[in-house]
Formats: sequence, structure tokens, C-alpha cells
Amino acid sequence: MSESINSHPDCSRSVQNGMKMWGGRFAAGPSSSMDALNKSISFDQRLWQVDIDGSVAYAKETDEDIHTANERRLTEIIGPVGGKLHTGRSRNDQVATDLRMWLKDEIVIIEGLLVKILDVLCNRAETELDIVMPGYTHLQRAQPVRWSHFLMSYAVSFKSDYVRLNSLLPEIDELPLGSGAVAGNPLGINREYLASLLAFSNVALNSMHAVSDRDFVAQFLQWAALTGIHLSRLSEDLIIYSTKEFRFITMSDQYSSGSSLMPQKKNPDVLELLRGKAGRLIGNHTGFMCTLKGLPSTYSKDLQEDKEPLFDSVDQIKIMLDAAHGVLATLTINANACRSALSFDMLATDVAYYLVRKGVPFREAHHIVGKLVVLAEGKQCHLKDIALKDLQSIDHRFADDYAQIWDFEKSMEQYSATGSTAHAAVWQQIATIREFIMNTKERFTIEQ
Amino acid sequence: MSESINSHPDCSRSVQNGMKMWGGRFAAGPSSSMDALNKSISFDQRLWQVDIDGSVAYAKETDEDIHTANERRLTEIIGPVGGKLHTGRSRNDQVATDLRMWLKDEIVIIEGLLVKILDVLCNRAETELDIVMPGYTHLQRAQPVRWSHFLMSYAVSFKSDYVRLNSLLPEIDELPLGSGAVAGNPLGINREYLASLLAFSNVALNSMHAVSDRDFVAQFLQWAALTGIHLSRLSEDLIIYSTKEFRFITMSDQYSSGSSLMPQKKNPDVLELLRGKAGRLIGNHTGFMCTLKGLPSTYSKDLQEDKEPLFDSVDQIKIMLDAAHGVLATLTINANACRSALSFDMLATDVAYYLVRKGVPFREAHHIVGKLVVLAEGKQCHLKDIALKDLQSIDHRFADDYAQIWDFEKSMEQYSATGSTAHAAVWQQIATIREFIMNTKERFTIEQ
Amino acid sequence: MSESINSHPDCSRSVQNGMKMWGGRFAAGPSSSMDALNKSISFDQRLWQVDIDGSVAYAKETDEDIHTANERRLTEIIGPVGGKLHTGRSRNDQVATDLRMWLKDEIVIIEGLLVKILDVLCNRAETELDIVMPGYTHLQRAQPVRWSHFLMSYAVSFKSDYVRLNSLLPEIDELPLGSGAVAGNPLGINREYLASLLAFSNVALNSMHAVSDRDFVAQFLQWAALTGIHLSRLSEDLIIYSTKEFRFITMSDQYSSGSSLMPQKKNPDVLELLRGKAGRLIGNHTGFMCTLKGLPSTYSKDLQEDKEPLFDSVDQIKIMLDAAHGVLATLTINANACRSALSFDMLATDVAYYLVRKGVPFREAHHIVGKLVVLAEGKQCHLKDIALKDLQSIDHRFADDYAQIWDFEKSMEQYSATGSTAHAAVWQQIATIREFIMNTKERFTIEQ
Amino acid sequence: MSESINSHPDCSRSVQNGMKMWGGRFAAGPSSSMDALNKSISFDQRLWQVDIDGSVAYAKETDEDIHTANERRLTEIIGPVGGKLHTGRSRNDQVATDLRMWLKDEIVIIEGLLVKILDVLCNRAETELDIVMPGYTHLQRAQPVRWSHFLMSYAVSFKSDYVRLNSLLPEIDELPLGSGAVAGNPLGINREYLASLLAFSNVALNSMHAVSDRDFVAQFLQWAALTGIHLSRLSEDLIIYSTKEFRFITMSDQYSSGSSLMPQKKNPDVLELLRGKAGRLIGNHTGFMCTLKGLPSTYSKDLQEDKEPLFDSVDQIKIMLDAAHGVLATLTINANACRSALSFDMLATDVAYYLVRKGVPFREAHHIVGKLVVLAEGKQCHLKDIALKDLQSIDHRFADDYAQIWDFEKSMEQYSATGSTAHAAVWQQIATIREFIMNTKERFTIEQ
Repeated sequence: MSESINSHPDCSRSVQNGMKMWGGRFAAGPSSSMDALNKSISFDQRLWQVDIDGSVAYAKETDEDIHTANERRLTEIIGPVGGKLHTGRSRNDQVATDLRMWLKDEIVIIEGLLVKILDVLCNRAETELDIVMPGYTHLQRAQPVRWSHFLMSYAVSFKSDYVRLNSLLPEIDELPLGSGAVAGNPLGINREYLASLLAFSNVALNSMHAVSDRDFVAQFLQWAALTGIHLSRLSEDLIIYSTKEFRFITMSDQYSSGSSLMPQKKNPDVLELLRGKAGRLIGNHTGFMCTLKGLPSTYSKDLQEDKEPLFDSVDQIKIMLDAAHGVLATLTINANACRSALSFDMLATDVAYYLVRKGVPFREAHHIVGKLVVLAEGKQCHLKDIALKDLQSIDHRFADDYAQIWDFEKSMEQYSATGSTAHAAVWQQIATIREFIMNTKERFTIEQ
Repeated sequence: MSESINSHPDCSRSVQNGMKMWGGRFAAGPSSSMDALNKSISFDQRLWQVDIDGSVAYAKETDEDIHTANERRLTEIIGPVGGKLHTGRSRNDQVATDLRMWLKDEIVIIEGLLVKILDVLCNRAETELDIVMPGYTHLQRAQPVRWSHFLMSYAVSFKSDYVRLNSLLPEIDELPLGSGAVAGNPLGINREYLASLLAFSNVALNSMHAVSDRDFVAQFLQWAALTGIHLSRLSEDLIIYSTKEFRFITMSDQYSSGSSLMPQKKNPDVLELLRGKAGRLIGNHTGFMCTLKGLPSTYSKDLQEDKEPLFDSVDQIKIMLDAAHGVLATLTINANACRSALSFDMLATDVAYYLVRKGVPFREAHHIVGKLVVLAEGKQCHLKDIALKDLQSIDHRFADDYAQIWDFEKSMEQYSATGSTAHAAVWQQIATIREFIMNTKERFTIEQ
Repeated sequence: MSESINSHPDCSRSVQNGMKMWGGRFAAGPSSSMDALNKSISFDQRLWQVDIDGSVAYAKETDEDIHTANERRLTEIIGPVGGKLHTGRSRNDQVATDLRMWLKDEIVIIEGLLVKILDVLCNRAETELDIVMPGYTHLQRAQPVRWSHFLMSYAVSFKSDYVRLNSLLPEIDELPLGSGAVAGNPLGINREYLASLLAFSNVALNSMHAVSDRDFVAQFLQWAALTGIHLSRLSEDLIIYSTKEFRFITMSDQYSSGSSLMPQKKNPDVLELLRGKAGRLIGNHTGFMCTLKGLPSTYSKDLQEDKEPLFDSVDQIKIMLDAAHGVLATLTINANACRSALSFDMLATDVAYYLVRKGVPFREAHHIVGKLVVLAEGKQCHLKDIALKDLQSIDHRFADDYAQIWDFEKSMEQYSATGSTAHAAVWQQIATIREFIMNTKERFTIEQ
Repeated sequence: MSESINSHPDCSRSVQNGMKMWGGRFAAGPSSSMDALNKSISFDQRLWQVDIDGSVAYAKETDEDIHTANERRLTEIIGPVGGKLHTGRSRNDQVATDLRMWLKDEIVIIEGLLVKILDVLCNRAETELDIVMPGYTHLQRAQPVRWSHFLMSYAVSFKSDYVRLNSLLPEIDELPLGSGAVAGNPLGINREYLASLLAFSNVALNSMHAVSDRDFVAQFLQWAALTGIHLSRLSEDLIIYSTKEFRFITMSDQYSSGSSLMPQKKNPDVLELLRGKAGRLIGNHTGFMCTLKGLPSTYSKDLQEDKEPLFDSVDQIKIMLDAAHGVLATLTINANACRSALSFDMLATDVAYYLVRKGVPFREAHHIVGKLVVLAEGKQCHLKDIALKDLQSIDHRFADDYAQIWDFEKSMEQYSATGSTAHAAVWQQIATIREFIMNTKERFTIEQ
């Protein structure tokens, strides 16, 4: 009984009992090249379940209106439900409804994947809080930071991804059904009741808008692209950290690949795919935005091009988040290599602060330290090892306490403001993310 | 005293008193080709005011920490504020702060422009509620609708644009200042207090994240692109409606252009620019997403490429919304031309409903009407004018009451469900948008 | 025996006789989430045939080098060819070779489809050369033109698409095989001979470049996107021309769809899909460009993301060109409706020329005609019907011969410069395209 | 005399002697918001010179046609040339001509910049041919290669950029002038002669196509984006190579920046800008493709959006190429650091070849070496240092000659096929690029 929706809105060529839905006025059937264009991928099987759910609710709603007249005949010919389904309903509002229902379900799954990543980041950050590494800017060593501080920087991104995704729901959660093809519904249906049957919070406000509104698709595609960018940046970091030159991390064999030619190779393919797929997600968004641009209002068939990018971005981001979780859960952090990469010139800013505390304005202090850096390079020694007399030849305010600067842990503990790298400050970040996770889990529990 | 920020984060070459900020360790100055690359457009003047505000707040905050030691010297050399500004502050957190402050202000302006458009749409929709036009799908005449129903379909888009824009604020409203270059702030500043001084609601949670987070820029760019798409679709409709073939609307001379060659021409250039610029806005977003993709974490100079697309998209969308408002406020709707475009075959669905009321399942009814359409084409008459005997030759259930179908107003009044085109249903839409406008205005009043 | 290439370059996990290609050094197998990421779509079956061809040629080439030592053992264990295939060959150069071979074949097919479109355009243009329609700018009626002139304007686009596609071949036609993983080939193979075996014109110049060069993919994707834009513009025109308001063309039933709700509807879905899919093609290109941006040199796994956009763009453009051909071959042009849409104000420029011939500078003439347009609007008459005294009240140089202006055919015949709309000028365009088709067909004949 | 072109095609509001070009029929002037939309950036000053050149040629051409009648009056009122310029010419064909003339000139400049980069790459590659470094795949050390081999891999990209750019010329080199607004030129002008006056090789074939064809803009924008990608990949390599962990290269102070906060920092800002700007160039292309998509044929005002992306991409790519040249000319390669990064496991493939020469099929050899890698890791020794008895415990075919494998130079010399890393093979690549440069310079000499 259920009609295929595979060439849907407003143009189905599906056949029931040998009768085309809109065949009455057409002299010739569709050409094969048109069929190819219209059905290049069979994507509608995805929407099968939500389509049935929507149809059942609509049939229930319209039951009273046409019950008396139709009952006998409907029962005789096509059974108790089928024939009523197109009374006042168009593929335009039907497919828009299906897509929203489907996406709402997928979002719950994706949110769960984000929580798993947040969880593994918090666990690692807690356990590995004492591991120190160089903090980089411009990929140059800048200041010592905690490895957990680095992990938390990505936790903030994924938390934000969760929040952004959740904030898409109110817009998705508006019911188009009852908008018909364009003018609305002439059967006096109660769309608010229909919304409650299908677990929508609101009904779409205007039928002409509702049948062609795909903003929620565009926004989801952008969400996926931006989340993909976060994964691409994480991957870039981890690819660099797993080079032989950095050696900060070792990827698990489970998430590495070898080379068909070079037996010694162990390649971070999974990270490269995460990085590369960010491009694809950007492409899905951009392409669909182009499709929307300049369309006349209400439904045009161009909108059928919403499905493939949406399905692909949903699929890809789920696979990507799952793989990212696996990588983060299984990689080894090499504390010694991280530590060895700290060099004393990374405390150059601390030398400047040392001078500031002696009354030197920061600008001047910065300039003096620049001269020390040059001096140290000339003498091929560390900043730390410049002799006091050489220090004083540059500025007379250097003194014996200069030696107390050179302690990475002590240096880090200065950075105690909210969000900084001191032990307590990072701990606070972990606690905040943990609390966030807890709240999302409560939400899930309530929902289920 | 104020230092130029035009080559900002972490790399200024600005000079004060002949002393480069980071010149101490460099043997050679920048090449002219590097300068050209770095300063291709002088975009920082835009941020001048917010940069000063941020600096004043930061100076106030750090005052206590370094006051005692520095006071005398600071006063002597650079005055009471200047020298402290770089103690613990980096261009990385400074520029990120500036950009957020600037954008928050712009968003208020843009929201005001959206409200103006909603206002003019409601006014016209109210006044012109009785004008009837063809509702199109696939650009083919589908069913009669009210012109006001059409106007409200765009009001729903612009309302949604307002809501989406407003929902960006919480993410923008997080203070990066105090994140330093990467590791945070070592001076024990109270970032929550700093946030309150600068009217931020929250402080950024992690310093490594805060210095390179540009998600808010990407999201604003996407917002502008999607809003641009709405304007492009409206423009497409109006361009088509203002052709000589449709004649539904006449553009005001104020928003039209002539031809240098053809004296009779009156061109809707402004609408074409609105449509064309949607592409540019999509490009700004896409380009910046590409720039972000695959960057290592924390600050890299690539992020300087955030400003030109952001400034351009802000400028363009403001100009576009203002022009769209002007067009909507001044165009003339030609009620007669709209009415004349209604043809009786647009009530074909009503014929199907006629049969449904007589107990015919909708599918079968649809098929019967398809046959009528072919019959009418064969006889070169309207559906309305098929003789009863011919009707009955196709289906015996046709009767004299067939003649009562052919009334456009009566037909429209059937569409009474929420969001439909019946008089009361459109009125309800206008009331909803009016209430929305009222609430946004209250918000503005409270804020100011 | 043939090894699957489905997880190719440099990272296969394929197994032969229980022995992973690079399993020797790995303690753990791949996780399921990594497999999902790597194999989300099984796209390699597409390259099966070209992969075999490449392998056979490579085996032949390397035969001499390792023949003596290996022959007995190879024959015993894996047959006469298999074991040698990875000696000196990497998946990096292998897959790059496969993709180029595959695309070269596809391009020949696509060129054939372009020629078919050019052919149908020439045929129609020749037959329908006397049909006159309004030429539009800004979608406003501008000057009368021939329908064939309109058809030829798209022929020029598709001719250009053919030329651009053909010009991609030299870049695709460079053989990467023999570049190994990165350093080249250590077996002394003759890559020029290998190129001749595989019908490549050149060998790639540098092995580090060759294994990661995907410029040819990016360029093809852009080609497809730009060709898609041409199809989208043609579709936009035809969608508008097939509205009830224009009625210039009637789409064949074979390329139209009906509505599930509205029995009278006949929708140009195929044209809308052509227009909408242009967005998807732009997205494929943009996404892949993002993937390429910022990659380290030589092969990274990100490059595996080349295949899905390439395969999709090839598939889509083939389907699109075929459908566009069908539409153009079967639509009906309504000569009367086109003619009726000509209005005399479209000859306003001719009035200006009339004045120019009497010695009025064009600027002034243009301005005078502007006044006539206003006058005619005021009198609600055509420009043509303004009384001589009224004409002369505006400019004394108007005379009796004013009446001779108002002949559309005569007007068109003035436009006789190359590329213009006069009969002979359009005829010349058709002849030029015909000659172009002839030359491409010769090329095909010679090739086959 | 020259009329501003700043609001050009078909819609100028420029005024001469108080007379608007198309003001005759308009009751109201343009609104300020429309002006803002239309003139947001004054970009037309760029085209001033080519516009004059085009006008002079057109005036010369039309001279004979209208000379007799107009001469006296023209001379009296507006001088000998002015008034004729709009006779038969539209802004549509005028601006399209200007843009092509301008771009042809810019391309010559850009080609010169590409040659400069090729030149510096050849010079360095020649001088530094004996410097050996790790060749990476997946950013993991793969096989030893020459630094010059690496440099040449980018030379191949830039050579290809030159060739691709040059191949755009035939399409740009078609003259639109004489196409009028849409229908062509009614004055019998000889467009072939006009083309020769303006140094165009061909005339555009169809006037309706010529006034709205912007394929050449789209193609140039894609060219710039792809060239930008090459620069972004080079930058990524050099950023990584200039980290403290790699230390392969040292950037010149001229192309480095410092930090306002951290005195020890030396940042590769210029490389990061090159990488970041690739995103912007992609955005310029994508945005303009979106603008083109779905436009009706002939001229619409949307096309005015061609200028800003084109001018920006031309400006950016020139600055970028110049900066890239500077970086390449001034960086220091640290031969010792490169050498030190070679590890003996990079010769693992050579061990496999060692076994192949003893009759082991490559697959099996690869697997055996995998076991050696694990063994060496277990013993914490290099592959090279595994004792013979341990080797033989894994495979009996290992023998004393195993020690001869471990020579990087000898290993590289095996890679002697075209495009490989052996001394002679790299030398050949340099020679090929040098010959290419020579040919382009001859072309320049002939042209000038």
C-alpha cells in the first residue's frame, strides 16, 4: 500500500494498480534520461520509517473529515487507510516533514558521539594532568603548557559543537505537514494536534514558506562542516605530534596503517582522512547553498538536491566522530618526549616579567630580552646560562635571582587566571566540562 | 600612545620611539613583499574604537598588580597607562577580543534592519490582504493565494534570520582577553571582572582555544550567506513578477535603472544585485572555512584572513537589507494583473475534492480530473466550461453542483488551517509577526 | 590473485593467503571505526579495469629485471605475474595512474554528449531560423532577436565546454607510474616505454610531485561545475519560457512531471534538476579544493577524498548532458506566442538611430526617445502611434518617415555585424558550429 | 569627455551637462540605498585605461558610418569623438571588452612572477643538489631524497600553473565589442578590424552570449585558487621544516615576525598568510560561480559582481607570488639537520630489495622486513645493527652482504628512472625546467 517516495515532491511517477498518480493528463511517459536524472541514487529508502509514521498520523487526523462519505468505498477498494492519504496532502509538505523527523533522530545519535569524545578527553586530562609540553603558536614553541590544557582546548570546541547542534533543534522542530502543495490545507485539520502526534513542538507558520524552507538542512550542513574543521585541526596537531621529529604521541596500531612498499612505515591515515573529509563537508554545504540561491519561492524540484548532501554529511560526521573518539582513547602520550621539547628560551617571557617586577616597563623589558636572545645565540648557550656580568652589560638590573626563573612547573603555576595552564586552572576546566556532560546525560535520561 | 594594530597578533612591526616591539632579536627588517602580503588592505581602522575600550579595561585590571613597582617609572617615561598594556596581554587575545566587541555592536544594527523589513511586510500584508494572485510551484500556476500570504512567506524567513542571528550572541559573548599568547594570564587578573567591564557575559574557558577560536566569525558569515539567499529568492520572484509578461508588480523609479542604449528599458538592477551578492556572501563563508580547515591549534597568522570577509559580509548585508526594505516599501502591486493571471484550471484540485466529497478516493479523483484536463484541452475550453454530459461520460458522479466550484475567493477560504491562505489564517500570520516585532522592540528598549 | 585496491595508497589492509601486505610490524589490526572511515563507500570497483591494465604493463616492464631469480619461485607460489607487481611500485603511483586512465576514457564519452547537444541546437536553429522572439536583458524585453540566435548563444557555451574539456587532456595525459612511493623507481624501468604501453603521451617529471598531484581532478571538477552553470542558465531560461505567462515553449511530456495533488499541473522538473545540480557540482569542486589546501607535499591519505567527488561529477554531468539533449530535441517552440510578445517599444533604439541619421548625437537622441516613452505612457498608446505633431513638439526633426521604423524583421536585418541577429549573421554562426562539429568527428574517427 | 563607467552595464546614472544618459523616461532619481548597493566599492578606476583604448578604437570604426550627417553637429556640440561613442555600443559589450583587455595585461605580469619563482628554484636546486633529506609520505619519514628533488617537485607545480594560465588566453582573447546590448551591431561595423585595432585574436561568435559570458573570469579565479593551493602546500612544508623540531630551514629575518609578548619567538607569518590566503582565493571563485549559477541568459546586473573577486584574486596572487619568491630566495637550508634526520629504518625498502635480488617475492620480502622492524624495536637497536644470527632466525637468506645496504647516497642512486631522486635524474629535471624558462622568455622577447 505504501507508495514509493523516491521521485517525490509533486512529481511522483509511482504506480498503484497500474494507475499513475498524475498520469491522467499525460500523453507520453517519462524518458529514460529524465528517469536517470531524477533517480541517480536511490536515497529515499532512508526516509521510509519516518514517512510511514507521518502518514499514519495524517490519516488519523483526516479521518473524521472524510470518514462518513468514504468509509464504505475505501474499505472496499484500498483498505481502511490508503486512499485518504493524499487528500489535502502533497508530496511537498510530506517530504519536508519526513526530512525533519529523520534529522531530529540523527541529531540525538550525533550528540551521543560528541559526549563520548568529551568524556575521553576529560578522563585523559585528569589522569595526565602533570604531563608538560610546549605550547605552540605559529607552530613555534611559545610557552610550557599542560598536555591536559591542550586536550581541554579541543573539549571546548566539541562542547560548543554540542551546544550549536542542540540549538538547531527549535528550527527543525516545526511541522510542515498541513501546508499542502502551496496554499495550505482545505480539510480543516488541526495542525497543532498533528504536531503533537508526531512529536513536533511547533507548526510551520506559513504554507508557502514551509514547502520550500530548507534552512535547517543548510544549517546542519554548516554545523557538520565546522565540526569537521575542529576534527581537521585536531588531526593536524596529532599528525605533527606523531612525526618522528616530535614523537609526542604514538598512535595505536588499531588506528594506523602500513605501507605496501616501505616496511618500516606506520602512517596516521585515520587522522589524514579526518582532515581531508573536512573539505568534503565544506563542499556539501557550499553546494547546497548554491542550489538554494536564486530559487523562486515555494517548491521547485531543485530542492530534491537536499538529500544527498544531508545524508552524506550525517554519515560522514558520525563515522568521523567515532573514529576520533577511538584515536583519542587509544593513543599513547610520550611524557618524556614532550618534556624534552621544552627549552629554556620558552621562559623568555618570564625574564621579561622578572624585569617588570623590578620596575621596567614591559615594552622595554621585551626589548632587553630580545638582546639576550641574540647574545645567547652568539655564545651558543641557553638564555639560562648567560653569565651575570654579560646580563648586566645589557641591563644593570639583572641580579643573582635570575637563576630562579628557570623552572617550567613554577613558571606554569603563575598562569592561574581562569582558563590558564596552572594546575588548578586546568582542573577547573575539566570540572566544567564534566558538569556539562552530566547535564546532557540528564537530558537524555529525561527524554528516554 | 596607542599602538597601531594593523599587523596584529603576535607579529606587529609597529614602532614606538624608534623601538620595534619585537625588534631586539632581529638582524633585518621586513621585506617590502612581506609588508605587502601582510597589509594588503588597511582593515584595522575598523577596530580602533573597540581596541581602545579593551585596552582601558585591561589597564584598569592590571593596575594593582604592577602598580607599586612601576608607577614612578611609568609616569616618567610613557605616562600613566601605556607601558602596562602588554604585561600579560598578547595581540592574540587582544584582537580576538576586539573582533567580538565590534561584531556585537554590528549585530544590533543588523537586527534593526531586519525589524524594518518585517514591519513593511506586515503593513503591506494588512493593507493588501484582499489581493489574489496565483500561487506557483515549479513556477507553474498551482492554486490561488493571497498576495499577503506571499509577503508573509518571506516575513517568516526574515523572522527566522533575526532569531538565528540573535542565537549567535552567546557564543560571541565570551571574553578571550586574559588568554595571553597561549598559556593564559600570569598576573592573577580577575577575568570575570574584566568581562563585566567590557560587557561580556562569560569568559572563554580555555586560553589555547580562545586565541584561535573563530567559530563565531564562520557562523556569522554563514548567517549572512543564508540571509542573502533569502534576499536572492525574494529578488528572483520580484524580477519575474516585474517582467512585461507577468506585470504583477511595478518597481519604483527610485529602485530601477535605465539602459544607455535602449530608451524604453526599465531594469530591476537593484534586485539583480541582491541576487548576485548572495553568491559573494557564500564565497566569503566558504573561503574562510577553507582558511580554518587543517590549521594547527592556537594562533597562526592565517587567522588574520578573518577580517576582510567579516567586514565585507557585514557591510554587504547591511546595504542589502536596507535596499530590500526600500524596494518592498516602494513597489506597486498590480491587483488587476494578478487577478487576471488566475485561470480556472487552478481549481482542478477543487474538482478532485468535489469528487472526494461524493465518496471518490482522492487518488481516483485526481486521475479523473486528469482526464478532464485532457478533455478540456481537446475542446479548447476551460475545465469550468465542460458540458455536464461530457463530465458524466467520464464519471457518473458529476452533477449540476459542479458549477459551484468556480469561485476563487470561496476556494481560498477552504484553506483555513494554520498557515494557510484563507483570510483569517493570513491575518493570524500577520498578528504573529507583529507580536514578534513588538517583543524585539521591547528587548531593544530594555537594552538601551 | 589481484589485490583489492579499495583502501589503497600506501595503506592497504588487503590480505592474501592470510598475510597482510604490511602486517609484519603491526601488533593489532585495524579498528572497525577506522575501517568505516576508510571504506565508507566502495568506490574502487570503478577503477578495476584500468588497474588491471596498468598492472599488466608494469609487470611486462619489470620482467627483465627480476625474471631470472624469481621465476621458479613465483611460478610455484603465486603464479607468473603477481609477486612482481609490488617491486618498486607503490599504491601511490598506482592509484594516481588508474585515475588518469579512467578519466581519459570518460572524457571521450562526455565530449560525445556535448557534440550531440551542439548537433540538435544546429538542427533546430536551421529549421526555425525565421521565428522571432524578444531578446531580453535584465529579463526585460530589449530588442527583437531570432530564436535561432538564442539557441546559438548556448551552442557557443557548449562549444567552449568542449574546447576547455579537451584542453585538460595534456595535463591528465602524464604517467605517474614509476614514481614509487616518493623517491622514484629503483629498478631502472623505462618510463617512456611504460607510457607508450599505457597510451600516455608523457611521463610525470618529478616523482614527489607525481604521487600527490591532483590538479587534474580539481580542474575536471571545475570544468563540470562551469558546464553545469551553463546548463543551469539554459534551464532558467526554459523554465521561464514555459510558464503560462510566457508560453514560448512547451516541454515534451517525456520531460515533464505532474503533481500528486493538482491534476492540471505539468512541471518542468527535469530543468529544475539541471539547475539544482549545478550547485552540487560547484560543491564537489569547492570541497575538493578545501581538501587539497594546506596539505604537506607528496602523498597523504587526504587525497583518497578525490574519488567520490570525481566519480559523482562525471556521473552527474553525463546524466545532465543527456537529459539536456533530450529536452532540446523534444520541446516545442510556440512561434506565435514569441511573436506576440514583441512590442513596438522594443524598437525605441531604432527611433534613436532614426534621429542619429538625421544628425542628432546618440546621447541626445536617446534622451529624446526617453521623453517619447513617457509621452506614450501618458497617452496610453504605443510609441508607434504618437501623432506627428506630438513628435514634433518634442523634436522638430521628426517627420513622416517615422512610420517606416515599425517593422521587426527590417529592424533585425540592420544587425548584420558578425555575431548579430540578422538572418545571414545567424546563418554564419550555425555554419561555424557545424564546422566545429565536423572537425571533432574527424578527430574521433582518427582516434578509433 | 570620458563618461564614468562606475555603475555600468546598461544602467549608468552618470550625468553629462546635467543630462542623465537614460533619464528621459524616469520620474524619480535613484534612492540612496540603491546607490549604496550599486557602488559599494569604486572599482572601475581600474579599468579606466582600457576603457579609453576601447572607446578610441570604436570611435575610429564607426567614423565612416555616421560621419557625414554628424560631423558638423558633433563638432559644434561635443567635439569630434564623444557623441558617437554610444551609437550602437552598449555598456554590456563595452565593460565585457574592458575586463578582457585588463586581464590580458595582468596575465603577462603574473607569468613573469611565475618565471621568477621557477628561476630561483632552479638556481637553488643546482647549487644544493648534494643536500640529502628525508622524503616524507603521510608526514612520516619514507625514503632519503635530495633537497633539490623536493624543490623541483614545486617547480613542476609552478610550471604547470604557467601553462594553465597561458592556456586561458585564447578564451579571453575574443572581442565582445560590437555585440551591443543583446542583438548585435546595426551600423555595419567590421568587428574583425576592430579586433585587430584592440589586439584581440578573435571576435565573439554570438552577441547574446558575448554580453554575459564571464567564463573567463570564473576560470581565472579557479586558476588563482589552484595556484594558491600550491603555495599553501609549499608553505605548510616550510612551516613544518622551520619548527624547532625539524630545523631543516631557517627563514630569513626579512620574512619572519616576532612576538609582542615572547621575545624568543621568530614566526613564519609570511608562510601562514600564503597558506591562509589560499582559502580566500577559493572563496572568490566559489562565490562567483554561485553568482553565475541559474542566471537568465544575456546581461543581468548580477554580473557586476565579477569585478571585486577578480581584482582581489589578481592582487592577492601577485602579492603572494612575489612573497613566495622572496622566501625561497632568502631561506637557509640546514644541510646538517636534514642529514641527521635520516634514519636507517628509511632503508627498510632496500632490505626488501636485497631479499628480492635473492629470489624472494616482494610481498614476502616486505613481510620479512616488517618482522625485522619489530625485532629491532624490541632490541631497541637500528635495523642496521641486528646481528646476523638474529637475521637468519627470521630468514635464512640473510648473509654478510646485509651490511652493504646502509649507505644513503648509494641507496638514492638506485632511483635513476625519469623523475627519480638519483643525481642525474634530478639534474635532468632542472634542465627541463630551465629549458621551459628559456622558451617563455623567448616568447616575451618576441611579444615585446
